[in-house]
Amino acid sequence: MGERCGVAAESAVTAEHVAEPVWSVDPRTGKPREQVAVEATAEEVDGAVRAAHAARGALADRTARAALLRTAADLLDGARDRVVEAADAETALGPARLTGELARTTAQLRYFADIVDDGAFLDVRISRPDPTTTPPTPDLRRMKIPLGVVAVYAAGNFPLAFSVPGGDTASALAAGCPVVIKAHPDHPATSELCAALLRRAAAETGLPQDVVVLVHGFGAGVELIRHPLVAAAGFTGSVTGGRALFDAAAARPVPIPFHGELGSLNPVVITEAAAEERAEELGAGLAGSMTLGQGQFCTKPGFVLAPAGEAGDRFEAALTAALKDAEPGVMLAGRMRGHFLTATYEDAQVEGIAAPVHPGPAGPHTVQAGYLSTDAATLLDGQRHVLLRETFGPVTLVARYGSREEVSAVLALVPGNLTATLQMADEDPDAPALLAELTPLAGRVLVNGWPTGVAVADAQHHGGPYPATTSPFTSVGGTAIERWLRPVAYQSTPQHLLPPELRD
Amino acid sequence: MGERCGVAAESAVTAEHVAEPVWSVDPRTGKPREQVAVEATAEEVDGAVRAAHAARGALADRTARAALLRTAADLLDGARDRVVEAADAETALGPARLTGELARTTAQLRYFADIVDDGAFLDVRISRPDPTTTPPTPDLRRMKIPLGVVAVYAAGNFPLAFSVPGGDTASALAAGCPVVIKAHPDHPATSELCAALLRRAAAETGLPQDVVVLVHGFGAGVELIRHPLVAAAGFTGSVTGGRALFDAAAARPVPIPFHGELGSLNPVVITEAAAEERAEELGAGLAGSMTLGQGQFCTKPGFVLAPAGEAGDRFEAALTAALKDAEPGVMLAGRMRGHFLTATYEDAQVEGIAAPVHPGPAGPHTVQAGYLSTDAATLLDGQRHVLLRETFGPVTLVARYGSREEVSAVLALVPGNLTATLQMADEDPDAPALLAELTPLAGRVLVNGWPTGVAVADAQHHGGPYPATTSPFTSVGGTAIERWLRPVAYQSTPQHLLPPELRD
Repeated sequence: MGERCGVAAESAVTAEHVAEPVWSVDPRTGKPREQVAVEATAEEVDGAVRAAHAARGALADRTARAALLRTAADLLDGARDRVVEAADAETALGPARLTGELARTTAQLRYFADIVDDGAFLDVRISRPDPTTTPPTPDLRRMKIPLGVVAVYAAGNFPLAFSVPGGDTASALAAGCPVVIKAHPDHPATSELCAALLRRAAAETGLPQDVVVLVHGFGAGVELIRHPLVAAAGFTGSVTGGRALFDAAAARPVPIPFHGELGSLNPVVITEAAAEERAEELGAGLAGSMTLGQGQFCTKPGFVLAPAGEAGDRFEAALTAALKDAEPGVMLAGRMRGHFLTATYEDAQVEGIAAPVHPGPAGPHTVQAGYLSTDAATLLDGQRHVLLRETFGPVTLVARYGSREEVSAVLALVPGNLTATLQMADEDPDAPALLAELTPLAGRVLVNGWPTGVAVADAQHHGGPYPATTSPFTSVGGTAIERWLRPVAYQSTPQHLLPPELRD
Repeated sequence: MGERCGVAAESAVTAEHVAEPVWSVDPRTGKPREQVAVEATAEEVDGAVRAAHAARGALADRTARAALLRTAADLLDGARDRVVEAADAETALGPARLTGELARTTAQLRYFADIVDDGAFLDVRISRPDPTTTPPTPDLRRMKIPLGVVAVYAAGNFPLAFSVPGGDTASALAAGCPVVIKAHPDHPATSELCAALLRRAAAETGLPQDVVVLVHGFGAGVELIRHPLVAAAGFTGSVTGGRALFDAAAARPVPIPFHGELGSLNPVVITEAAAEERAEELGAGLAGSMTLGQGQFCTKPGFVLAPAGEAGDRFEAALTAALKDAEPGVMLAGRMRGHFLTATYEDAQVEGIAAPVHPGPAGPHTVQAGYLSTDAATLLDGQRHVLLRETFGPVTLVARYGSREEVSAVLALVPGNLTATLQMADEDPDAPALLAELTPLAGRVLVNGWPTGVAVADAQHHGGPYPATTSPFTSVGGTAIERWLRPVAYQSTPQHLLPPELRD
């Protein structure tokens, strides 16, 4: 952890702790680029949280919060070339995608600045005195206040939009909560650069820099969730890591809200009528969505129910053709590439599972997109529904169904999701019942679209039944701010002592 | 569990399970009144949850939900004499209090019916398509939908307003969630009577009776929180019991929200100026609030910081006089009386703690209210801050402070609360800073009032930092409905397939 980001990177060699180096690695070659920082010790995490906690009072001023978010957006935009270059070197996501992700990130910071100005998130409610109720109603004025220091666990697959300057940070700062961010190990240099810009934005806005503090290291992440002054946490990552942190948050003497986005299969149902109408378009569309960002999106369509028969065959043929044409790509890290190759290899060995386009290695550091194919009856037989889980990377599982009943039976085995998609025809007779079956499975239900691409908007919901998220909240869109607030009601309090928002 | 309430009370004697009888007990004599039911076995809990789950679709109709709530209120009001008699026989709370509690309960049911009609709780948000954003914004329409079956754990101290027909049940049904209620063991007959009325209301409204199911037994409560079809839980009770259930909810393969109201000290700070102005009024007012319902309110003021010196002496004298005049009372159950007597006896033995009016037994089944007194320095010295925890029953702890700094030092040791109260004078110089120190400690902050008496109102907040509640939500007031909902966003969905609330 560099001095830039708030906690001195002193040599921390003690009897228990050896300062582990944090390296930036080039996923295109697997070679280390530079040592960026060292992992934070327990004492350094404590210092980071205490520094953020001490800075919380300065965020009470909503005008300053909005200015901080806008200044941070401006500084990030101003450093675009450096940020995109750093992120590309560490993630191989490419300058085009990262330039877009940065634009999304800075737009998101400004969007939350507008939300701070607007103030609707304070959810002000005023009840006037009424002596006729049982018990009598006094003067009650309720609004939401910040929870305190928020721990943010950055995502691997979005080095900007879901990492240091991303949605958790933006929404927490908007709520008035300082953040201690645990950097993702796959883009530590980008994390340092962005944290330095956020801290400079704080200084330029007249706020303490410690409203944003960065720490590195797996152990630091565990220390963070246990720290008594951490009041809530946001996480985007794997089911394994997220669940471990969720459990730690729940096991604290004082449990705290843990808002984790963990994993999602994102099922797609193609009706018979839709396949007949546009099989080729659906095959090509699916290939595009599932390979976007090398299939490393939490909203990647990972499971598709397509009809048996000729229209379904045309759909698979189009998918096959599109995937065979797909360029090999580099995954975010060698570790992820390894997981992808192992999981897809093993899944393809399962009896009843074919691999019309086998996902696999395309070179020492690249992978080839592919898909697995089966029929619904195979998934319904025995334990093969374990295949209904997320595999990170450019692969999807297509299951062909022979009847409407099979669709329902398979959907009943699907765990919770961020999204569920219905591909239907106009006046499709199956559509109403299918939409009713998909709604309980997901937080966002799409018709005739693809789930990748998550707009930052008031009506967005990026969350869903576990394991999609660990709480019924969104991490994208305006209501993401609700995660970092709690209500407080003032009873019979003189005007001059009320927060300004609650006065007459 | 009686047949009246949805699960057949068949003799359930198996190798593992002996059907344990559930007795109604008279706390005025300690004698059993009647056997009301038997404890539910694991199989019966499973049957109860499945029955409620099967009934959930019927609650999708908001008109029917509102009618159910109003019919339930009418039936309860119509059975007032029977309900009050049953509750008084089991709780000794007295007909006056229970008549008031029933009025509050039925008003609460009607209040949630109005909320259902109003529909604002659906939190509808619509984002129009905008191709200029990164990524582009599609047509997004978001609303909140019910989570599913809610487990309700009834409270001992409010046999109506926080039990079978209480706020958790009313808000869950309003949200569209069926409820399986775990009856409190201290008022099983009242629970059966109320559940039967709620189920009759469902039948009269044309809904399945199983939208409300009742179970009895400690083991049933544990089975309930682990059941895969239970989607959320509401609890009002002790820190020990609530934390065990919270832990079980978090440890499930699919964790669920657990909204528990566990314990609260409800600190009161009396400023020097307030004591000088109205010491006698404050002493009498405190005595009234802390003995209301025999001190068995979760909002009982359990800790008071009063100034040292002459004004504080007058306050203590008034408190002493009022408590010496207090009538002995019967507590909710012999078990609670035992806890109260033990805790107050032990606390009074601690060095530095005096008992100007010693709480104690007043007869074989009654208790005498009292209070303990100390000074702030004593609490700050060593481990005596362990006294800063809730003791159920008519007792409070008064600590005399010598300086403003001592007030802050003691408040820093106080755990989370439902309420925090400031007793101040007009133009009190200490008020702004004290209010700022009290706000982080509680969900409701009162000025110049007493915390007992929780109005059912839009701006109410009955919740607070742990252990007051396990989540930043309220169990009283309109926003209590938010606990049982989750958002879902529909993307690019044709008008005719959208829920009516989301159409143009």
